[in-house]
Amino acid sequence: MELINDDVELRELQATDLELLMAWRSNPILYEWFYDQAGPLHWEEHYNWWINRRNRKDWIIVFNGEFKKRDVGSVNISMLNSDYPEIGIFVGEISLWGKGIAQKALEIAIEYLKNEKYSGATARVMNENIRSNNLFLKSGFNKVGMNEKGEELYKLTF
Amino acid sequence: MELINDDVELRELQATDLELLMAWRSNPILYEWFYDQAGPLHWEEHYNWWINRRNRKDWIIVFNGEFKKRDVGSVNISMLNSDYPEIGIFVGEISLWGKGIAQKALEIAIEYLKNEKYSGATARVMNENIRSNNLFLKSGFNKVGMNEKGEELYKLTF
Repeated sequence: MELINDDVELRELQATDLELLMAWRSNPILYEWFYDQAGPLHWEEHYNWWINRRNRKDWIIVFNGEFKKRDVGSVNISMLNSDYPEIGIFVGEISLWGKGIAQKALEIAIEYLKNEKYSGATARVMNENIRSNNLFLKSGFNKVGMNEKGEELYKLTF
Repeated sequence: MELINDDVELRELQATDLELLMAWRSNPILYEWFYDQAGPLHWEEHYNWWINRRNRKDWIIVFNGEFKKRDVGSVNISMLNSDYPEIGIFVGEISLWGKGIAQKALEIAIEYLKNEKYSGATARVMNENIRSNNLFLKSGFNKVGMNEKGEELYKLTF
């Protein structure tokens, strides 16, 4: 299965991407939307996350835009041992927000799960994150509740 | 000449580093110290900077720290057609600030210019940037004035 949607494609995260992923995730403009992060990442926690991750896949979002293909964000699917894995997504190149890149990447992730015969997908989005809430609604997810951290819970059944 | 100082080394910036450099430079915790930047970078300006740069060298700072070597920041030397080129430096991995990485990288840049038979080096630092002002003072630079943008001007004669 090719993980391509128009000018967006996903490639699997590698150890050589860790600095870029860390740089994106250390930007307060981005991490203000992560309920569990209050400051820039530390290498030790980031590297430990990398070597200990289980039941999930991580990809880099590659955008075939101006001048040359480039890495612009990340998609992950976790809880791969459940029927409804959870999709997480962010565009790390902040000036690209609002251009539809995340939606195309999300569509690829959904296709991947359909292809792997899962029953559906879930997502968690901070209540105040209007852009991200709209993304999942537009892609067919339904709001199914809110958890104690103030995250909206989304579910899509294939 | 090997560009190594203890656990810090410099390698030349390549096109494949552009996303990482952009991610670091798009972090407000960092760019609040750049007098000429008010928001995250745009790819077009960043890429144009890359293909149009002249009279300068750019390196990635590689830190041989925990777990594996990693990219943590950047050093540049501009105005290479003058007797006193200008050194710019930042550590993009924000949680590494205060660990002496920038000073070791600066020492390598100074050695490089000495080796190339330049007369000395200059630097510009925003007045409010105490950390960076201390870095250049500790490395032997002298304050020689301030420009109209509020940047302290530093000079070191070899």
